Parts: sequence; structure tokens; C-alpha cells
Amino acid sequence: MKYTILNSEMIAQLERIVGQSFLFLDQETRNHYGHDETEDYVFPPAVVLKPGTPEEISAILKVANHYKIPVTAIGGRTGLSGGALSVHQGIGLSMERFDKILHVDEQNLQVTVEPAVITQVLREIVSEKNLFYPPDPSSQGSCWIGGNVAENAGGARAVKYGVTKDYVLNLEVVLANGEIIWTGANTLKNSTGYNLTQLMVGSEGTLGIITKIVMKLLPKVTNNILMLVPFYSAKEACEAVSAIFRAGIVPSALEFMERDAIDWTLKFVEGINVQINDGIQAHLLIEVDGNYPDILFAEAEKIMGVVEQFQIDEVLFADTEDQKNALWKMRRAVGEAVKSNSIYKEEDTVVPRYELPTLLEGIKTIGDKYGFKSICYGHAGDGNLHVNIVKGTMSDSDWNTEIPKGIREIFELTVSLKGTLSGEHGIGFVQKNYMDIAFNTAQLQLMKGIKTVFDPNGILNPGKIFPDNL
Amino acid sequence: MKYTILNSEMIAQLERIVGQSFLFLDQETRNHYGHDETEDYVFPPAVVLKPGTPEEISAILKVANHYKIPVTAIGGRTGLSGGALSVHQGIGLSMERFDKILHVDEQNLQVTVEPAVITQVLREIVSEKNLFYPPDPSSQGSCWIGGNVAENAGGARAVKYGVTKDYVLNLEVVLANGEIIWTGANTLKNSTGYNLTQLMVGSEGTLGIITKIVMKLLPKVTNNILMLVPFYSAKEACEAVSAIFRAGIVPSALEFMERDAIDWTLKFVEGINVQINDGIQAHLLIEVDGNYPDILFAEAEKIMGVVEQFQIDEVLFADTEDQKNALWKMRRAVGEAVKSNSIYKEEDTVVPRYELPTLLEGIKTIGDKYGFKSICYGHAGDGNLHVNIVKGTMSDSDWNTEIPKGIREIFELTVSLKGTLSGEHGIGFVQKNYMDIAFNTAQLQLMKGIKTVFDPNGILNPGKIFPDNL
Repeated sequence: MKYTILNSEMIAQLERIVGQSFLFLDQETRNHYGHDETEDYVFPPAVVLKPGTPEEISAILKVANHYKIPVTAIGGRTGLSGGALSVHQGIGLSMERFDKILHVDEQNLQVTVEPAVITQVLREIVSEKNLFYPPDPSSQGSCWIGGNVAENAGGARAVKYGVTKDYVLNLEVVLANGEIIWTGANTLKNSTGYNLTQLMVGSEGTLGIITKIVMKLLPKVTNNILMLVPFYSAKEACEAVSAIFRAGIVPSALEFMERDAIDWTLKFVEGINVQINDGIQAHLLIEVDGNYPDILFAEAEKIMGVVEQFQIDEVLFADTEDQKNALWKMRRAVGEAVKSNSIYKEEDTVVPRYELPTLLEGIKTIGDKYGFKSICYGHAGDGNLHVNIVKGTMSDSDWNTEIPKGIREIFELTVSLKGTLSGEHGIGFVQKNYMDIAFNTAQLQLMKGIKTVFDPNGILNPGKIFPDNL
Repeated sequence: MKYTILNSEMIAQLERIVGQSFLFLDQETRNHYGHDETEDYVFPPAVVLKPGTPEEISAILKVANHYKIPVTAIGGRTGLSGGALSVHQGIGLSMERFDKILHVDEQNLQVTVEPAVITQVLREIVSEKNLFYPPDPSSQGSCWIGGNVAENAGGARAVKYGVTKDYVLNLEVVLANGEIIWTGANTLKNSTGYNLTQLMVGSEGTLGIITKIVMKLLPKVTNNILMLVPFYSAKEACEAVSAIFRAGIVPSALEFMERDAIDWTLKFVEGINVQINDGIQAHLLIEVDGNYPDILFAEAEKIMGVVEQFQIDEVLFADTEDQKNALWKMRRAVGEAVKSNSIYKEEDTVVPRYELPTLLEGIKTIGDKYGFKSICYGHAGDGNLHVNIVKGTMSDSDWNTEIPKGIREIFELTVSLKGTLSGEHGIGFVQKNYMDIAFNTAQLQLMKGIKTVFDPNGILNPGKIFPDNL
């Protein structure tokens, strides 16, 4: 598709909508909004707009739709699939002025929030009212709730509490033609027409611009126990994951880290006191939560009974809040630590959890075949394994030709295990040309058909999700 | 839209696909498959087919799509919105031969099931393996899991465990053009393209024919406590519902029954020993569940602390399994009991739960205005109130002219409270002309656009969901 290059008349129209102080053409601002956390990509939009109301976004989209100008919504720019990159230039629509928590509804255990609220801030504000918003992406300190909805973000607690989609009840959305709609109702149950809400969640800015989010909350959970279990075999660590569930326990977090992931992180983050014996290949970080400490001890004991069937080293129980925070800080820093070491590519594979050992072994075999090293970690309780492929000493030419073949094989393995390409990062820009592995043409054409219904001119976040050759 | 009337050549083509013994043209069979539990409607299909494989359905749909013959999937025929009625005749596609539980995956806590498995059978089979499929529609003894998916059915346990949609991971679907696709992957998390799975759930047979369902399961929960709380004020019973959640408790069921609902049910169902004092206006049936009896007693005590703040009579605790079964039998029989008494219409209103008292009062006021009696009951913990409007001694002419006006006002009230038309029954045939209350033209056109992507000739379950004038 051919997109319009912005001219001065179009810029003037946009300026009349948002005002001079919220329109930016300078290179520095455009560069700033041209990257997220996805590898080292930079795609500056032609113009950055910072609208303040849904009505301004509506007016912007009417102009963009008229002239066929690409519009890419930009959130906290912590994404790992390039969803917020303006790969076809056009308008970079920074949502940063939509930063209000509009209503914490303590009567109905709901919150209405604008997209630019930082996830951790949202979690803390509702927690002050004894309410609980469970999803906790590793980037929760900087990512925005709107981006979480757009990518259907997960996090460590998803294993017990579900992902972002499980908390979204209703969305205010500006459509490509400028119409402002709500997708559903503020109810826990809804069998009224097609589920536009869940269609919008995870659609990565390609179907509309989200301006308000109504989410359900839970009563606050008061207690938890956190334990770090060192395994002499990474495969056994993976096997222990499904054994814990088969024992009837649903932990509130069940995280896997390869040895390298922890080693690199301990070098990267200061002040974490974890000793790892030689021979340890992987760790599981396991949390149980609830309101009754006695029960948590009983569950932790049950978990010990399961993990002791494998070759493990001494289990570390976090005794204080500080110790718990340190362990979580370590887990959350893995991604950044690995990336600080080398050029990398990160994949977000997900399989039924019992298939994790097979997936892990397969990834290592594929790495050997194509000559790359991978560091694996992630939300093992959900079968969601992040695969960080590090460039290290690999030549640029091998990096550019061999790695895509290796990634393709990893995804083929994932899909053969009844899994798929992305568990929580989205497809965005960097995975789109692997979509043919997960979906055949009939499936992709359905998605493309839906896209065309919502956005006939293809102005919303073009160059994402769909393979280039579709 | 104009649909093709089946001729003998088309019948012959269909017979070649399913075989003579699975094609029925006789009036008795057609009548049998022409009704469900929706009021007294009968819409016989022109022909009943009972295919045995997805490939046969694919071949049937290719014929139907070629000639523009309507195709209505027919499940357990327990629906309350007329979703399975062949209102434009054509092919009635009985799914009854898809009655296998294909795989209980104990390693991944998943089950793969065909659509004609009775929900209760599914629950019992997985329970034998210490697994738990929570959704339990009141019709669970006769409804089919495929219909539950098509209508996004709920049930009493939805308040803690969610509705059908929250358990569907992946669907095999035959599209209108005969293509057979899977909608997603067998994973707990998925951010890979648009959520076709959740688009299909609740689409009432209008987007495709579901032939396999992959669902997630939970570890079995071993204990529960069930209590019946009589309230002197129906409004206070509704108020107690959200007070229980605000106290930090998530019950596994929280059901509301008006006095009349119980009185009629006790006359209808034998062997239930419940004494109700004069002046009692409503009951709450409250269950807590978990694996630790001590905790359940503590939670039940907390609930007592909440309900005792209202004017209540003595609380009945079900001491034995028999007592529990009797109370559940009573609750589940309410719908049938009310219907056995009079011609009726049943609405499936849902609001944020704190709005329940306002909704209930409003329904009574509207009833007074239009001269009808209503009996209200349902899943109060979800804000889901079933409204049975009984004809009683009302004249046929008032019934046909006044009741639709009253229902419209009830739905307008529901939507004004941020609720919607249907919590768990679907829109189907009987609520479609109220859809304009919940959605404006922009929203309905999006849904219609999606319908056209999946089913360009409009052959799948025509005459459902969308208002006649759209």
C-alpha cells in the first residue's frame, strides 16, 4: 500500500486540532518517539502529536483517514515486538496526556483508567483501597496500561490470575473514521453480540485508538511465600513446572531462569545476595499467595514435596519483604541484563506447559545447528518461554542470514507442540513474517478482513502483525 | 435477504454427503429440531442433517454457500434466546454425532471435546481425574458444551471462576465457505494476531460451525460450604451482594431468588424441605469453596458478619451432600417452575453488581406501569438478574403490545446502569430487536462487517443477533 507523505497543509490541519505546543516536527522529538525496547530499531514518525482528548484523536483520525496518512499509537515504548514503531512514518500519536485514573469503583471492584497510566502506579493506587490488579509485566515500573491492553501483556502472576485480557471489561475506542465507540459494557458477564472488547485487546493499535479502559479488580490478597529452587538439570526444572500443577497446586508465580540468565543478572544488578553452586543449570522462582498464612505454609510444603523428587540444591525461602523484592528485582532484570551484554533478538514462545522440556531442548539443538547461543527464561507456569538469542561473536552476515532461519525453526517447533509465536509481547513488527507458521492463508485472510472492516484505508499502525507478502 | 428454498436436486446433493440415514425430511423430526427452551417458538428447518465429521460439515456448507441455503447449528436445544431456531428454514444441522470427549490432557490440565457432550458429563469425567471444569449453567444436565461456547454460557460458579469464554483456548471451526480452521493455539497465553477464539465464543452460530473445543481445566477443589440466607427485604438482599465482595470475600456462588421464585419452585419440585417465614422477600444462596475446611468456616463466618447487618431470618447451612443437592436442585429448577405456571418471557439482564438494587426496583416499577408481574432470580454475584415476565391473566393483546414496551424500558434501564442486554443467554432471535439499546449504528455496523467477512452470503444462522432493520 502507498501512504501519503505529510505536506505543510496537512500539518497545518493537524496543528489546528492539537495546538502548536502539542505538535512536534524536530528530529530529536521524532527520534525519541521512534524507538521502543525492540532491539535497536528506530523509526521516527514524520510528526509527533500529543492529543489531549478522544475528540482531538477523532479529528486527527478523520484527517489521516481522508489523506491516507499512517497513524501509530505510542505508549510507554517498552514494547518488545516493535508495536509502537512508526515503520511507515506518518503521525506518531503519543498518548501521554491520557494519564488519569478516572474512577476507582470500590462498590463494583472496577477501575476506569486512561491508557498512559503506568501499570505499577495503577496497581499501587488500587492496592491502597484494598483492591488488586494482578497483571504485572516485568516492565510494570515503566510500561503503560494502554500498551498492556494493546499487546495483551502478561506477567508473572498470569499463571494464577490471567493476563491483561482477563481484566478488560469495556474499552472506549476511536475508530479509523473518527467515530468514538465503547466496545461492550461494564459487566462481568456479557453475551450481547460479538466480543469487540476481546477483539480490540491484543490488536496492537491496528483496529482503533484506545482512550479509556474499564477493568475488573479483585479483593486484595494479603500474604505470600516466595521460594527460589536451584535445579541441577534445566530439563528437570521444566518438568517440575507441570508436576506442581498436577499435584493440585496453582502457584501465583512460577518463573524459570536458565543459569546464564541469573549469572548475567547478578553481574548487572547490584545488591542481590544469591549464591549458586557449580552444576546448577536453572532456577524456578515460585510464589504462592492467599489470605491465610497457615495455608500458604501447607502449599509451600506440598511444592517442596514435588521439587524434591528432582535433583535440586538447597531451596531459598525469602524471609523478608526486602528479600522478596530482591528476588523479584533479579527476575525482572533478566531481560535487560541479557540485552546489556550483546546485540540480541528476543522471542516470546508459548506452549502447553508440559511441552516446556521438549521446547527447551529443541531450542538448544536449533542453536547448535545455526551457531547461536540462547538464554531462556520466563513464565514457565504458563508455558511462556522467552528466548534471548545473543549475537556475541557471531559475524554480521551470519547474524542476518542464519538467525532468521533458526528463529523460523524455533517457531515451527513451538507450533508443532500446539503452541504459538507470542504469549505476551505481540507480533508487531519483528515477528510478522513468521505468522505463516502459526496461521494458514484462510486464517490470515479472516484477520485481514476484520482489519479492513475497522480500518478500510489501512491507516492504523501499518506494517504490523500481517506478513509483508499477504 | 432472500434465501433459497431447498429443491430435490439440493437435497440429493446433501444426501450424498451425510448418507440417507442422517437426512430427515419428515415433519415430526423437523418439528423436534425446530424448538428449544425459548418460550413456545417452533421453527422447523426444511431438512435436518446429522453429519458425523468436520469434513462432512465442510461439504454441506459448500453446497449451502453455493445455493445460499440457511444453515442453523442445533445443539442440546436448551437455549433461552432462540439461537438454535431455524427461523429462515433451510438446513437444521444437528451436531449430535459430535459427542466425544477426545482427550483429557492431565499433563497440561486441558480437555479437547466435541460440541455435543453434555456439560455435566464433561464436568464429571474430568472430575474423576481430579480436574475441574467450573462453568455450570442451570441446564448443565442437558445442555451441550458446544451450545455453551456458542452462547458464552455462565452459571452459578461464574462469580468466582468465570464463564465459558474464560475456559476456551482453541476452537476447530468450519467456515461458511467450507474451510476448516483452528482459531488459536492450545496455550494459556496468546498474543499472536487477532483473538479469533474469543470472537467465535458467543457468536451464536453466525460465524462458523464449531467442531472441536480445547478448554483449560483447574485442579479439583475439594470442599465447600453452602448457606441459604432469607432476607425480609429483597432490596437489602441485593445490597448484601456487593457488601460481601467489599468485605474481601469471593464466594464460589452467590445466587438471588425472589420469594415468588422459591414459592413456585417448592410447589414444582418435590422433596425439598425449606420453611419460609412470612415477610421474607428474597433469599441469597451463598457458597464458598476451597481445599481447606478451616478457611471455609472462617469465610462463612465473615459472610455471616456481613449479612447480619441486614434484616434476615435464620440462616440455613446445608450440612450434608443431600441437603446441598436439594438446595441446588431448588435453585436450578426456578426457571422451569416459573415457566410451568404461565406463558412467560425471560430476560437476562446484567449490570455492575452494586446496581442490582436499583435494577430490581426499576423492573418492579416498569411492571406496575405496563401491568405485568415479574419473577426475578439469578447470578447476583455477577450482577446477572434473570427477569421472568409471566402472562398470568393478562390479555393476549396487552401481552403482545405492552410487554415489548416494558422490556424495552427494562433494557434501557439496564444500559443506563452501565449494564447490557444479556449476561449469559445470548441475543439470538428474541432479543435482537433490542440491540439498538445497547449499541449504536457504528457498533452494529462493525459487528455486521465482521459477519460479512466470515459469511459473505449470510447463510449461517440468519435472523439472529442483528436487528431486522439493520
